[in-house]
Amino acid sequence: MGMTMVEKIIAAHSDNDSVKPGQIVNARVDLVLGNDVTTPVAIKEFNKIGVDSVFDRDRVAIVPDHFTPNKDINSAQQALMVRNFAREKEITNYFEVGEMGIEHCLLPEKGLTLPGEIIVGADSHTCTYGALGALATGVGSTDMAAAMATGELWFRVPETIKFVYTGKLNPWVSGKDLILYTIGKIGVDGALYKAMEFTGEAIENLSMDGRMTMSNMAIEAGGKCGLIACDDKTREYLTDRAVRDFTPYYSDNDAIYDRVIEYDVSEIEPQVAFPHLPENTRPVSKAGDVKIQQSVIGSCTNGRLEDLRIAAEVLKNKHVHEDVRCIVLPGTQEIYKQAMKEGLFEIFIDAGVAVSTPTCGPCLGGHMGILAKGERAISTTNRNFVGRMGHPESEVYLSNPAVAAASAVKGYIASPEEVVE
Amino acid sequence: MGMTMVEKIIAAHSDNDSVKPGQIVNARVDLVLGNDVTTPVAIKEFNKIGVDSVFDRDRVAIVPDHFTPNKDINSAQQALMVRNFAREKEITNYFEVGEMGIEHCLLPEKGLTLPGEIIVGADSHTCTYGALGALATGVGSTDMAAAMATGELWFRVPETIKFVYTGKLNPWVSGKDLILYTIGKIGVDGALYKAMEFTGEAIENLSMDGRMTMSNMAIEAGGKCGLIACDDKTREYLTDRAVRDFTPYYSDNDAIYDRVIEYDVSEIEPQVAFPHLPENTRPVSKAGDVKIQQSVIGSCTNGRLEDLRIAAEVLKNKHVHEDVRCIVLPGTQEIYKQAMKEGLFEIFIDAGVAVSTPTCGPCLGGHMGILAKGERAISTTNRNFVGRMGHPESEVYLSNPAVAAASAVKGYIASPEEVVE
Repeated sequence: MGMTMVEKIIAAHSDNDSVKPGQIVNARVDLVLGNDVTTPVAIKEFNKIGVDSVFDRDRVAIVPDHFTPNKDINSAQQALMVRNFAREKEITNYFEVGEMGIEHCLLPEKGLTLPGEIIVGADSHTCTYGALGALATGVGSTDMAAAMATGELWFRVPETIKFVYTGKLNPWVSGKDLILYTIGKIGVDGALYKAMEFTGEAIENLSMDGRMTMSNMAIEAGGKCGLIACDDKTREYLTDRAVRDFTPYYSDNDAIYDRVIEYDVSEIEPQVAFPHLPENTRPVSKAGDVKIQQSVIGSCTNGRLEDLRIAAEVLKNKHVHEDVRCIVLPGTQEIYKQAMKEGLFEIFIDAGVAVSTPTCGPCLGGHMGILAKGERAISTTNRNFVGRMGHPESEVYLSNPAVAAASAVKGYIASPEEVVE
Repeated sequence: MGMTMVEKIIAAHSDNDSVKPGQIVNARVDLVLGNDVTTPVAIKEFNKIGVDSVFDRDRVAIVPDHFTPNKDINSAQQALMVRNFAREKEITNYFEVGEMGIEHCLLPEKGLTLPGEIIVGADSHTCTYGALGALATGVGSTDMAAAMATGELWFRVPETIKFVYTGKLNPWVSGKDLILYTIGKIGVDGALYKAMEFTGEAIENLSMDGRMTMSNMAIEAGGKCGLIACDDKTREYLTDRAVRDFTPYYSDNDAIYDRVIEYDVSEIEPQVAFPHLPENTRPVSKAGDVKIQQSVIGSCTNGRLEDLRIAAEVLKNKHVHEDVRCIVLPGTQEIYKQAMKEGLFEIFIDAGVAVSTPTCGPCLGGHMGILAKGERAISTTNRNFVGRMGHPESEVYLSNPAVAAASAVKGYIASPEEVVE
């Protein structure tokens, strides 16, 4: 009997010849991740376990990215606690302000997330690394503590839903639109605890940046993880990056799927998820007249180089609408530098955009662009829950970077076709 | 009987042939300034006055720079209130996120602060514009409201202390060191309610950026304002900037000064103000072994292009110490763009510096680099009061950008000579 990619990964990490959905297994993890918000809780739990050191100092990554540079005294205390722990345990992959970026942009860039691996992170968007063919999933801080101490964690082997994306993408349609469209179809619990496997011609043609955007939002459909098979693009991305050897796994032809869902992407236009759930999607042409006061371009979902290039293409020789604050948040310092060198920041500044240092910032209502009562934002981030970006009576609309940039120019939710000739 | 510069400015704005220190006069103001922290209070008071419009929509400037991009819901509500007021009153000089900068860097750049003018701002560092030969002074929000409504305000004509800086500056010594040295000598109340007039060869040789740094900190000696006479450098700076005609005023040779204080600047080395007052100055060579965890380069005091150039000179091909977060905050979008084009940001990023969008940020404990308990920062900002940058048990040491950059590299308070060959 064949196995899916995720089953093979779990089997390989638990010394089983095979595993089946529903089975509970203990598995080794290749990397354990935490940030400045989740790690302090994990540290308290870790200290209760009574071990002196983490299971492998090279296989723990700590990225203070949420409320940094420290937004207030409380976040400064949290960051201090995390820093002290990283120093004391001699964590190799602790990334300080100035060296860091948004965790899910940074760790792939540093070659720390590899095909065939199991990666757990105390952050729900850890699933991003599925784009590299890893079983990557978010866990609670207590699980993070256990994994840091033992290098293992229990898993319920998930069923896999196979998504097949056929056809060619329309102009301005990206990985973000495919995943928003998918969530719109299956709902925010459509893949509850299941592995999502993204396949098909459209996925093969997606860049690594676009793939990471897709896997990043698997959790928004309830997915345990969202995997894309390692291919030449993956290997090329990992050249000169990968810090460890790796073994990719591929689903067998006779693997058993929970479901197979096929979409013809040529029928998909840029998507907008309306408040207050990522499943409330509409094609941008059906968005209607929605005035916005803020446009956020960045985050672990869409803060990569390709995203900034697309935003710059739309904003070039244009200007942000006078009623809009547009904030660009590059994902990492490397992305920041490259975008700057390519002239993207000059385009942004000339357009009246505020360019931030890498941080999660406003995505989770942290800082760097919080909404007041009644304000609306279009955002390339991943969640539009009630109050996600500020006041409980504010609204967030999710989109790709082209739509967010076009909307910044127009002052209402707009298609890039309205802005770019 | 001769008059000082400040006396002439007040006389000209109050239709008096002459005025004397101690006299209370009503004077016209040329510009009224507020920010996102002080304007909301002023708006409430303004609304009680019962006038429909501000005295002159071109002569009110509102710059939301302190807690922007909005750091939290409260600051978002404040920014919204300010924005709505600016729109309703059709304030010409309202600067939105993306177009803005730190008020005291932005307004001179926009040519809104001119020689011979009276400028009042609901921010203590309004005195910055004294560098252009204006009587510029901080007022409370209630006074801001009255000035917005009437275009006038009462003043007690201040005595003037004349400071004469002779000689040539030593390497790495800047306007920041002159003003820190001065405050160290006369104390934080050494010029209480008095006009400080900065003169002499060393002032003539200072750039406009260096002059603005000096005038900016007049308030830290208790000064009502800190003036520098308009000269060719001032006129050159204002070419293509000045939005209005202006009339400079100069102190008469027989003007009566409260005191005349002379310093030989060739005896001054880079200064560091120790906690918790700007008067606690020492030469950097006498700083001793003070480990730091953060270095802040920016603010209305030292966020100008010259400051960033100096910091980059020190940080070039160097790296920030692993125990230090170094944060650069350019003063305005124009400064940001120019610094980027000159390659300064590439130097910063390569050195492991976080480059922020323009904001007052950590200077006043706002956001973008708040200190935890027990942490120490060296900072190019203007105040090192208890808890100024975060936790009440944190410490701030004030310096120029070269010392702040060198300290970032070394991990302790260091002279640039220790870092640059």
